[in-house]
Amino acid sequence: MVGPFGGVTAATALRAVLDDPRCAGEPVSITVNYAGPIAEGPFTIESRLVRTNRSTQHWMLTLSQGDAVHTTATVVCGARRASWSDTEITAPAAPAPESVAITTPPGFPVWMDNYEMRFVEGHGPLAGEQVEQPTSTTTLWVRDTPPRPLDQLALTALSDVFIPRVMVRKGTMVPASTVSLTVYFHADATTLAEQGAQPVLATAGAQHFGDGFFDQTAQLWGVAGTPLATSHQLVYFKG
Amino acid sequence: MVGPFGGVTAATALRAVLDDPRCAGEPVSITVNYAGPIAEGPFTIESRLVRTNRSTQHWMLTLSQGDAVHTTATVVCGARRASWSDTEITAPAAPAPESVAITTPPGFPVWMDNYEMRFVEGHGPLAGEQVEQPTSTTTLWVRDTPPRPLDQLALTALSDVFIPRVMVRKGTMVPASTVSLTVYFHADATTLAEQGAQPVLATAGAQHFGDGFFDQTAQLWGVAGTPLATSHQLVYFKG
Repeated sequence: MVGPFGGVTAATALRAVLDDPRCAGEPVSITVNYAGPIAEGPFTIESRLVRTNRSTQHWMLTLSQGDAVHTTATVVCGARRASWSDTEITAPAAPAPESVAITTPPGFPVWMDNYEMRFVEGHGPLAGEQVEQPTSTTTLWVRDTPPRPLDQLALTALSDVFIPRVMVRKGTMVPASTVSLTVYFHADATTLAEQGAQPVLATAGAQHFGDGFFDQTAQLWGVAGTPLATSHQLVYFKG
Repeated sequence: MVGPFGGVTAATALRAVLDDPRCAGEPVSITVNYAGPIAEGPFTIESRLVRTNRSTQHWMLTLSQGDAVHTTATVVCGARRASWSDTEITAPAAPAPESVAITTPPGFPVWMDNYEMRFVEGHGPLAGEQVEQPTSTTTLWVRDTPPRPLDQLALTALSDVFIPRVMVRKGTMVPASTVSLTVYFHADATTLAEQGAQPVLATAGAQHFGDGFFDQTAQLWGVAGTPLATSHQLVYFKG
Protein backbone atom coordinates (compact mmCIF):
# COMPACT_ATOMS: atom_id res chain seq x y z
CA MET A 1 0.00 0.00 0.00
CA VAL A 2 2.98 2.30 0.52
CA GLY A 3 5.38 1.31 -2.26
CA PRO A 4 5.39 -0.05 -5.79
CA PHE A 5 3.89 -3.42 -6.73
CA GLY A 6 5.75 -6.06 -4.69
CA GLY A 7 5.69 -8.44 -7.63
CA VAL A 8 7.84 -6.18 -9.76
CA THR A 9 10.30 -5.69 -6.91
CA ALA A 10 10.62 -9.48 -6.62
CA ALA A 11 11.06 -9.82 -10.39
CA THR A 12 13.73 -7.09 -10.33
CA ALA A 13 15.67 -8.97 -7.64
CA LEU A 14 15.45 -12.18 -9.65
CA ARG A 15 16.57 -10.39 -12.78
CA ALA A 16 19.73 -9.23 -11.01
CA VAL A 17 20.60 -12.90 -10.54
CA LEU A 18 19.53 -14.17 -13.97
CA ASP A 19 21.46 -11.37 -15.71
CA ASP A 20 24.61 -12.14 -13.73
CA PRO A 21 27.22 -14.01 -15.80
CA ARG A 22 27.90 -16.25 -12.79
CA CYS A 23 24.28 -17.49 -12.72
CA ALA A 24 24.11 -21.29 -13.08
CA GLY A 25 20.84 -23.07 -13.76
CA GLU A 26 17.25 -21.89 -13.65
CA PRO A 27 15.52 -20.28 -10.66
CA VAL A 28 13.93 -22.79 -8.29
CA SER A 29 13.17 -20.58 -5.28
CA ILE A 30 13.09 -16.91 -4.31
CA THR A 31 12.20 -15.20 -1.05
CA VAL A 32 11.79 -11.43 -0.94
CA ASN A 33 11.39 -9.46 2.30
CA TYR A 34 9.90 -5.98 2.00
CA ALA A 35 11.72 -3.88 4.60
CA GLY A 36 10.60 -0.44 3.47
CA PRO A 37 8.81 1.39 0.65
CA ILE A 38 10.84 2.01 -2.50
CA ALA A 39 10.59 5.58 -3.77
CA GLU A 40 10.50 6.50 -7.46
CA GLY A 41 14.10 7.02 -8.55
CA PRO A 42 17.41 5.18 -8.76
CA PHE A 43 18.14 2.12 -6.65
CA THR A 44 21.09 -0.23 -6.20
CA ILE A 45 20.94 -4.02 -6.02
CA GLU A 46 23.91 -5.70 -4.38
CA SER A 47 24.06 -9.41 -5.06
CA ARG A 48 26.32 -11.86 -3.27
CA LEU A 49 26.92 -15.27 -4.81
CA VAL A 50 27.18 -17.37 -1.66
CA ARG A 51 27.83 -20.81 -3.06
CA THR A 52 27.58 -22.89 -6.22
CA ASN A 53 26.98 -26.62 -5.79
CA ARG A 54 26.40 -29.32 -8.40
CA SER A 55 22.63 -29.03 -8.10
CA THR A 56 21.95 -25.63 -6.53
CA GLN A 57 23.35 -22.11 -6.43
CA HIS A 58 22.68 -19.71 -3.54
CA TRP A 59 22.40 -15.91 -3.69
CA MET A 60 21.72 -13.10 -1.20
CA LEU A 61 20.61 -9.66 -2.36
CA THR A 62 19.77 -6.23 -1.03
CA LEU A 63 17.97 -3.41 -2.82
CA SER A 64 18.97 0.01 -1.47
CA GLN A 65 18.25 3.67 -2.05
CA GLY A 66 20.97 5.82 -0.53
CA ASP A 67 22.09 4.16 2.70
CA ALA A 68 18.78 2.45 3.44
CA VAL A 69 18.02 -1.15 2.50
CA HIS A 70 14.42 -1.38 1.30
CA THR A 71 14.30 -5.01 0.22
CA THR A 72 16.27 -8.17 0.94
CA ALA A 73 16.09 -11.35 -1.08
CA THR A 74 17.54 -14.82 -1.36
CA VAL A 75 17.47 -16.75 -4.62
CA VAL A 76 18.26 -20.40 -5.28
CA CYS A 77 18.97 -21.52 -8.82
CA GLY A 78 19.07 -25.18 -9.69
CA ALA A 79 19.92 -27.67 -12.37
CA ARG A 80 16.60 -29.03 -13.60
CA ARG A 81 17.02 -32.70 -14.48
CA ALA A 82 14.57 -35.31 -15.68
CA SER A 83 13.04 -36.99 -12.63
CA TRP A 84 9.94 -38.77 -11.42
CA SER A 85 7.11 -36.27 -11.59
CA ASP A 86 3.67 -35.95 -10.05
CA THR A 87 1.29 -33.20 -9.01
CA GLU A 88 -0.73 -33.75 -5.82
CA ILE A 89 -2.68 -30.50 -5.92
CA THR A 90 -5.41 -29.87 -8.47
CA ALA A 91 -6.18 -26.71 -10.37
CA PRO A 92 -9.38 -24.94 -9.31
CA ALA A 93 -12.42 -25.40 -11.54
CA ALA A 94 -12.69 -22.50 -13.98
CA PRO A 95 -14.41 -21.86 -17.31
CA ALA A 96 -12.19 -21.21 -20.33
CA PRO A 97 -10.55 -17.77 -20.12
CA GLU A 98 -12.30 -16.37 -23.21
CA SER A 99 -15.68 -17.01 -21.57
CA VAL A 100 -14.84 -14.92 -18.49
CA ALA A 101 -15.27 -11.14 -18.67
CA ILE A 102 -12.22 -8.90 -18.40
CA THR A 103 -12.42 -6.64 -15.34
CA THR A 104 -11.80 -2.95 -15.91
CA PRO A 105 -8.82 -1.97 -13.73
CA PRO A 106 -9.78 0.32 -10.84
CA GLY A 107 -7.10 2.94 -11.69
CA PHE A 108 -5.51 2.55 -8.26
CA PRO A 109 -3.25 0.78 -7.60
CA VAL A 110 -1.81 1.66 -10.99
CA TRP A 111 0.04 -1.66 -11.43
CA MET A 112 -3.30 -3.37 -12.02
CA ASP A 113 -3.44 -1.56 -15.38
CA ASN A 114 -0.60 -3.86 -16.47
CA TYR A 115 -2.66 -7.02 -16.09
CA GLU A 116 -5.63 -8.44 -17.97
CA MET A 117 -7.73 -9.99 -15.20
CA ARG A 118 -10.72 -12.31 -15.64
CA PHE A 119 -12.10 -13.13 -12.19
CA VAL A 120 -13.68 -16.52 -11.62
CA GLU A 121 -14.09 -16.26 -7.84
CA GLY A 122 -13.30 -13.76 -5.08
CA HIS A 123 -13.18 -10.57 -7.12
CA GLY A 124 -12.58 -8.42 -4.06
CA PRO A 125 -13.47 -4.76 -3.56
CA LEU A 126 -11.21 -3.46 -6.36
CA ALA A 127 -13.16 -5.54 -8.86
CA GLY A 128 -16.60 -4.58 -7.59
CA GLU A 129 -17.28 -7.18 -4.86
CA GLN A 130 -17.75 -4.88 -1.88
CA VAL A 131 -19.37 -7.32 0.54
CA GLU A 132 -17.91 -9.62 3.17
CA GLN A 133 -17.02 -13.10 1.93
CA PRO A 134 -16.95 -16.43 3.81
CA THR A 135 -13.47 -17.25 2.47
CA SER A 136 -10.64 -15.22 1.02
CA THR A 137 -10.11 -17.41 -2.04
CA THR A 138 -9.59 -15.62 -5.33
CA THR A 139 -9.28 -17.41 -8.66
CA LEU A 140 -8.65 -15.55 -11.90
CA TRP A 141 -7.23 -15.88 -15.38
CA VAL A 142 -4.49 -13.31 -15.71
CA ARG A 143 -1.79 -12.23 -18.12
CA ASP A 144 0.29 -9.15 -18.87
CA THR A 145 -1.28 -6.37 -20.87
CA PRO A 146 -0.09 -5.85 -23.51
CA PRO A 147 0.29 -9.65 -23.77
CA ARG A 148 3.80 -11.05 -23.94
CA PRO A 149 5.30 -14.52 -23.53
CA LEU A 150 5.59 -15.72 -19.95
CA ASP A 151 9.06 -16.00 -18.45
CA GLN A 152 10.34 -16.63 -14.90
CA LEU A 153 10.39 -12.87 -14.21
CA ALA A 154 6.75 -12.38 -15.24
CA LEU A 155 5.82 -15.51 -13.28
CA THR A 156 7.50 -14.06 -10.18
CA ALA A 157 5.53 -10.85 -10.52
CA LEU A 158 2.30 -12.79 -11.09
CA SER A 159 2.81 -14.58 -7.76
CA ASP A 160 1.99 -11.26 -6.09
CA VAL A 161 -0.95 -10.33 -8.34
CA PHE A 162 -3.55 -10.97 -5.62
CA ILE A 163 -4.81 -8.07 -3.56
CA PRO A 164 -4.45 -8.60 0.21
CA ARG A 165 -6.74 -11.45 1.31
CA VAL A 166 -8.13 -9.42 4.21
CA MET A 167 -9.67 -7.02 1.66
CA VAL A 168 -11.45 -9.89 -0.10
CA ARG A 169 -12.81 -11.22 3.21
CA LYS A 170 -13.96 -7.79 4.38
CA GLY A 171 -15.14 -6.55 0.97
CA THR A 172 -13.45 -3.24 1.60
CA MET A 173 -10.06 -1.51 1.52
CA VAL A 174 -7.84 -2.42 4.49
CA PRO A 175 -4.28 -1.11 5.00
CA ALA A 176 -2.00 -4.08 4.28
CA SER A 177 1.40 -4.79 2.84
CA THR A 178 3.43 -7.88 2.06
CA VAL A 179 6.22 -8.59 4.54
CA SER A 180 7.74 -11.68 2.93
CA LEU A 181 7.06 -13.43 -0.40
CA THR A 182 8.34 -16.84 -1.49
CA VAL A 183 7.99 -18.40 -4.95
CA TYR A 184 8.84 -22.00 -5.85
CA PHE A 185 9.26 -22.44 -9.61
CA HIS A 186 7.89 -25.60 -11.18
CA ALA A 187 8.00 -24.62 -14.88
CA ASP A 188 11.02 -25.32 -17.02
CA ALA A 189 11.81 -23.41 -20.22
CA THR A 190 9.77 -25.81 -22.38
CA THR A 191 6.66 -25.39 -20.25
CA LEU A 192 7.03 -21.60 -20.33
CA ALA A 193 7.41 -21.67 -24.12
CA GLU A 194 4.24 -23.76 -24.43
CA GLN A 195 2.39 -21.28 -22.24
CA GLY A 196 3.49 -18.31 -24.33
CA ALA A 197 1.26 -15.29 -23.89
CA GLN A 198 -1.84 -17.26 -22.89
CA PRO A 199 -3.55 -16.48 -19.56
CA VAL A 200 -2.39 -18.12 -16.32
CA LEU A 201 -4.95 -19.58 -13.92
CA ALA A 202 -4.04 -18.02 -10.59
CA THR A 203 -5.60 -18.90 -7.25
CA ALA A 204 -4.82 -17.73 -3.72
CA GLY A 205 -6.25 -17.95 -0.23
CA ALA A 206 -5.30 -17.02 3.29
CA GLN A 207 -4.57 -19.67 5.91
CA HIS A 208 -4.67 -17.70 9.17
CA PHE A 209 -5.33 -14.08 10.14
CA GLY A 210 -4.29 -12.87 13.61
CA ASP A 211 -2.18 -10.39 15.59
CA GLY A 212 -2.02 -8.04 12.59
CA PHE A 213 -0.60 -10.59 10.14
CA PHE A 214 -1.95 -13.22 7.76
CA ASP A 215 -0.37 -15.75 5.44
CA GLN A 216 -1.42 -16.50 1.87
CA THR A 217 -0.75 -19.52 -0.33
CA ALA A 218 -1.07 -19.28 -4.10
CA GLN A 219 -0.84 -21.51 -7.15
CA LEU A 220 -0.20 -20.49 -10.76
CA TRP A 221 -1.36 -22.94 -13.44
CA GLY A 222 -0.71 -23.00 -17.17
CA VAL A 223 -3.49 -23.36 -19.74
CA ALA A 224 -2.60 -27.04 -20.16
CA GLY A 225 -3.20 -27.66 -16.44
CA THR A 226 0.52 -27.63 -15.68
CA PRO A 227 1.65 -26.18 -12.35
CA LEU A 228 3.94 -23.25 -13.13
CA ALA A 229 4.69 -22.00 -9.62
CA THR A 230 3.49 -22.15 -6.04
CA SER A 231 3.87 -19.14 -3.80
CA HIS A 232 3.43 -18.09 -0.21
CA GLN A 233 3.48 -14.78 1.57
CA LEU A 234 3.13 -13.18 4.97
CA VAL A 235 1.21 -9.90 5.03
CA TYR A 236 0.88 -7.16 7.65
CA PHE A 237 -2.56 -5.59 8.02
CA LYS A 238 -4.42 -3.10 10.20
CA GLY A 239 -7.95 -3.98 11.16
CA MET B 1 20.64 -36.48 4.03
CA VAL B 2 24.17 -35.06 4.10
CA GLY B 3 24.14 -32.73 7.09
CA PRO B 4 22.47 -32.31 10.47
CA PHE B 5 18.69 -31.96 10.92
CA GLY B 6 17.62 -28.87 8.96
CA GLY B 7 15.14 -27.95 11.67
CA VAL B 8 17.83 -27.40 14.26
CA THR B 9 19.86 -25.31 11.81
CA ALA B 10 16.80 -23.10 11.28
CA ALA B 11 16.21 -22.85 15.03
CA THR B 12 19.87 -21.93 15.56
CA ALA B 13 19.59 -19.11 13.03
CA LEU B 14 16.43 -17.84 14.71
CA ARG B 15 18.09 -18.03 18.11
CA ALA B 16 20.89 -15.75 16.90
CA VAL B 17 18.22 -13.12 16.24
CA LEU B 18 16.13 -13.68 19.39
CA ASP B 19 19.25 -13.58 21.62
CA ASP B 20 20.41 -10.30 20.03
CA PRO B 21 19.80 -7.29 22.31
CA ARG B 22 18.63 -5.33 19.24
CA CYS B 23 15.81 -7.81 18.56
CA ALA B 24 12.40 -6.07 18.59
CA GLY B 25 9.16 -8.02 18.67
CA GLU B 26 8.43 -11.70 18.14
CA PRO B 27 9.39 -13.76 15.08
CA VAL B 28 6.77 -13.67 12.32
CA SER B 29 8.70 -15.20 9.42
CA ILE B 30 11.96 -17.05 8.75
CA THR B 31 13.44 -18.42 5.53
CA VAL B 32 16.49 -20.66 5.67
CA ASN B 33 18.44 -21.75 2.59
CA TYR B 34 20.66 -24.80 2.94
CA ALA B 35 23.72 -24.11 0.80
CA GLY B 36 25.97 -26.90 2.03
CA PRO B 37 26.26 -29.58 4.72
CA ILE B 38 27.36 -28.39 8.17
CA ALA B 39 30.14 -30.52 9.66
CA GLU B 40 30.36 -31.35 13.35
CA GLY B 41 32.45 -28.63 14.97
CA PRO B 42 32.44 -24.87 15.50
CA PHE B 43 30.49 -22.50 13.29
CA THR B 44 29.97 -18.75 13.07
CA ILE B 45 26.67 -16.96 12.56
CA GLU B 46 26.91 -13.42 11.23
CA SER B 47 23.71 -11.46 11.61
CA ARG B 48 22.95 -8.16 9.97
CA LEU B 49 20.11 -6.03 11.31
CA VAL B 50 18.87 -4.50 8.06
CA ARG B 51 16.03 -2.33 9.25
CA THR B 52 13.68 -1.73 12.18
CA ASN B 53 10.25 -0.33 11.38
CA ARG B 54 7.28 0.33 13.65
CA SER B 55 5.70 -3.04 12.85
CA THR B 56 8.51 -5.22 11.49
CA GLN B 57 12.24 -5.76 11.86
CA HIS B 58 14.36 -7.34 9.10
CA TRP B 59 17.49 -9.50 9.51
CA MET B 60 19.90 -11.31 7.18
CA LEU B 61 22.17 -14.09 8.44
CA THR B 62 24.89 -16.45 7.30
CA LEU B 63 26.18 -19.56 9.05
CA SER B 64 29.79 -20.32 8.12
CA GLN B 65 32.51 -22.83 8.88
CA GLY B 66 35.91 -21.47 7.92
CA ASP B 67 35.47 -19.40 4.76
CA ALA B 68 32.47 -21.32 3.44
CA VAL B 69 28.87 -20.23 3.97
CA HIS B 70 26.75 -23.30 4.64
CA THR B 71 23.40 -21.65 5.40
CA THR B 72 21.76 -18.31 4.70
CA ALA B 73 18.66 -17.01 6.42
CA THR B 74 16.36 -14.05 6.62
CA VAL B 75 14.21 -13.38 9.67
CA VAL B 76 11.37 -10.92 10.13
CA CYS B 77 10.26 -10.02 13.65
CA GLY B 78 7.04 -8.17 14.22
CA ALA B 79 4.96 -6.40 16.78
CA ARG B 80 1.98 -8.66 17.42
CA ARG B 81 -1.07 -6.51 18.04
CA ALA B 82 -4.70 -7.39 18.70
CA SER B 83 -6.49 -7.62 15.34
CA TRP B 84 -9.36 -9.28 13.57
CA SER B 85 -8.64 -12.98 13.54
CA ASP B 86 -9.84 -15.99 11.57
CA THR B 87 -8.49 -19.33 10.43
CA GLU B 88 -9.51 -20.53 6.96
CA ILE B 89 -7.70 -23.86 7.04
CA THR B 90 -8.86 -26.71 9.25
CA ALA B 91 -6.79 -29.13 11.28
CA PRO B 92 -6.68 -32.69 9.93
CA ALA B 93 -8.89 -35.25 11.67
CA ALA B 94 -6.88 -37.14 14.27
CA PRO B 95 -7.62 -39.21 17.36
CA ALA B 96 -6.39 -37.88 20.72
CA PRO B 97 -2.59 -38.20 21.00
CA GLU B 98 -2.68 -40.64 23.92
CA SER B 99 -4.69 -43.09 21.79
CA VAL B 100 -2.05 -43.19 19.02
CA ALA B 101 0.96 -45.48 19.44
CA ILE B 102 4.44 -43.96 19.78
CA THR B 103 6.72 -45.03 16.92
CA THR B 104 10.10 -46.42 17.85
CA PRO B 105 12.72 -44.17 16.18
CA PRO B 106 14.62 -45.91 13.38
CA GLY B 107 18.07 -45.02 14.80
CA PHE B 108 19.00 -43.18 11.63
CA PRO B 109 18.66 -40.28 11.12
CA VAL B 110 19.65 -39.76 14.75
CA TRP B 111 17.65 -36.54 15.17
CA MET B 112 14.45 -38.58 15.16
CA ASP B 113 15.47 -39.90 18.60
CA ASN B 114 14.76 -36.38 19.88
CA TYR B 115 11.07 -36.52 18.98
CA GLU B 116 8.14 -38.51 20.31
CA MET B 117 6.16 -39.29 17.15
CA ARG B 118 2.63 -40.72 16.98
CA PHE B 119 1.72 -41.22 13.33
CA VAL B 120 -1.90 -40.82 12.27
CA GLU B 121 -1.36 -41.01 8.50
CA GLY B 122 1.57 -41.37 6.09
CA HIS B 123 4.09 -43.06 8.39
CA GLY B 124 6.66 -43.36 5.61
CA PRO B 125 9.44 -45.94 5.28
CA LEU B 126 11.28 -44.88 8.46
CA ALA B 127 8.18 -45.71 10.50
CA GLY B 128 7.50 -49.05 8.85
CA GLU B 129 5.29 -48.12 5.85
CA GLN B 130 7.46 -49.42 3.02
CA VAL B 131 4.90 -49.39 0.21
CA GLU B 132 4.00 -46.77 -2.37
CA GLN B 133 1.28 -44.33 -1.30
CA PRO B 134 -1.28 -42.45 -3.42
CA THR B 135 -0.47 -39.15 -1.68
CA SER B 136 2.47 -37.85 0.32
CA THR B 137 0.42 -36.54 3.24
CA THR B 138 1.76 -37.27 6.70
CA THR B 139 -0.09 -36.36 9.89
CA LEU B 140 1.36 -37.02 13.32
CA TRP B 141 1.31 -35.91 16.92
CA VAL B 142 4.82 -34.87 17.84
CA ARG B 143 6.75 -33.29 20.70
CA ASP B 144 10.30 -33.11 21.96
CA THR B 145 11.65 -36.05 23.93
CA PRO B 146 12.32 -35.51 26.76
CA PRO B 147 9.20 -33.28 26.75
CA ARG B 148 9.68 -29.56 27.29
CA PRO B 149 7.51 -26.48 26.84
CA LEU B 150 7.11 -25.34 23.24
CA ASP B 151 8.79 -22.09 22.21
CA GLN B 152 9.38 -20.40 18.84
CA LEU B 153 12.72 -22.20 18.45
CA ALA B 154 11.23 -25.65 19.02
CA LEU B 155 8.34 -24.71 16.70
CA THR B 156 10.85 -23.76 13.99
CA ALA B 157 12.60 -27.10 14.29
CA LEU B 158 9.25 -28.94 14.26
CA SER B 159 8.44 -27.33 10.90
CA ASP B 160 11.10 -29.58 9.40
CA VAL B 161 10.15 -32.77 11.30
CA PHE B 162 8.68 -34.45 8.20
CA ILE B 163 10.85 -36.84 6.21
CA PRO B 164 11.10 -35.95 2.50
CA ARG B 165 7.68 -36.41 0.88
CA VAL B 166 9.13 -38.39 -2.01
CA MET B 167 10.08 -41.13 0.48
CA VAL B 168 6.50 -41.33 1.75
CA ARG B 169 5.16 -41.58 -1.83
CA LYS B 170 7.70 -44.21 -2.86
CA GLY B 171 7.71 -46.11 0.45
CA THR B 172 11.47 -46.30 0.32
CA MET B 173 14.60 -44.25 1.01
CA VAL B 174 15.32 -41.65 -1.68
CA PRO B 175 18.27 -39.21 -1.59
CA ALA B 176 16.75 -35.81 -0.81
CA SER B 177 17.62 -32.63 1.04
CA THR B 178 15.85 -29.40 1.83
CA VAL B 179 16.95 -26.45 -0.30
CA SER B 180 14.82 -23.70 1.27
CA LEU B 181 12.54 -23.67 4.32
CA THR B 182 10.07 -20.93 5.30
CA VAL B 183 8.09 -20.72 8.53
CA TYR B 184 5.28 -18.25 9.26
CA PHE B 185 4.59 -17.96 12.99
CA HIS B 186 0.97 -17.67 14.10
CA ALA B 187 1.35 -18.37 17.84
CA ASP B 188 1.95 -15.60 20.33
CA ALA B 189 3.55 -16.14 23.75
CA THR B 190 0.19 -16.84 25.41
CA THR B 191 -0.69 -19.56 22.90
CA LEU B 192 2.72 -21.17 23.34
CA ALA B 193 2.33 -21.10 27.12
CA GLU B 194 -1.07 -22.80 26.84
CA GLN B 195 0.44 -25.47 24.61
CA GLY B 196 3.25 -26.17 27.06
CA ALA B 197 4.82 -29.60 26.56
CA GLN B 198 1.73 -31.18 24.97
CA PRO B 199 2.01 -32.79 21.51
CA VAL B 200 1.64 -30.70 18.36
CA LEU B 201 -0.54 -31.96 15.51
CA ALA B 202 1.70 -31.71 12.47
CA THR B 203 0.64 -32.33 8.89
CA ALA B 204 2.52 -31.97 5.61
CA GLY B 205 2.10 -32.82 1.95
CA ALA B 206 3.87 -32.19 -1.33
CA GLN B 207 2.31 -30.02 -4.02
CA HIS B 208 4.41 -30.84 -7.11
CA PHE B 209 7.34 -33.16 -7.86
CA GLY B 210 9.36 -32.59 -11.04
CA ASP B 211 12.81 -31.88 -12.49
CA GLY B 212 14.49 -33.16 -9.33
CA PHE B 213 12.65 -30.84 -6.91
CA PHE B 214 9.40 -30.86 -4.97
CA ASP B 215 7.68 -28.42 -2.66
CA GLN B 216 6.03 -29.22 0.65
CA THR B 217 3.46 -27.30 2.68
CA ALA B 218 2.98 -27.99 6.38
CA GLN B 219 0.76 -26.92 9.24
CA LEU B 220 1.45 -27.17 12.97
CA TRP B 221 -1.59 -27.14 15.27
CA GLY B 222 -1.85 -26.85 19.04
CA VAL B 223 -3.88 -29.25 21.17
CA ALA B 224 -6.67 -26.67 21.42
CA GLY B 225 -6.98 -26.58 17.61
CA THR B 226 -5.02 -23.34 17.35
CA PRO B 227 -2.74 -22.83 14.33
CA LEU B 228 0.79 -22.41 15.68
CA ALA B 229 2.72 -22.11 12.41
CA THR B 230 2.50 -22.78 8.69
CA SER B 231 5.58 -23.78 6.77
CA HIS B 232 6.76 -24.43 3.24
CA GLN B 233 9.89 -25.91 1.77
CA LEU B 234 11.56 -26.76 -1.51
CA VAL B 235 13.43 -30.05 -1.58
CA TYR B 236 15.99 -31.51 -3.98
CA PHE B 237 15.70 -35.23 -4.69
CA LYS B 238 17.22 -37.92 -6.91
CA GLY B 239 14.84 -40.40 -8.41
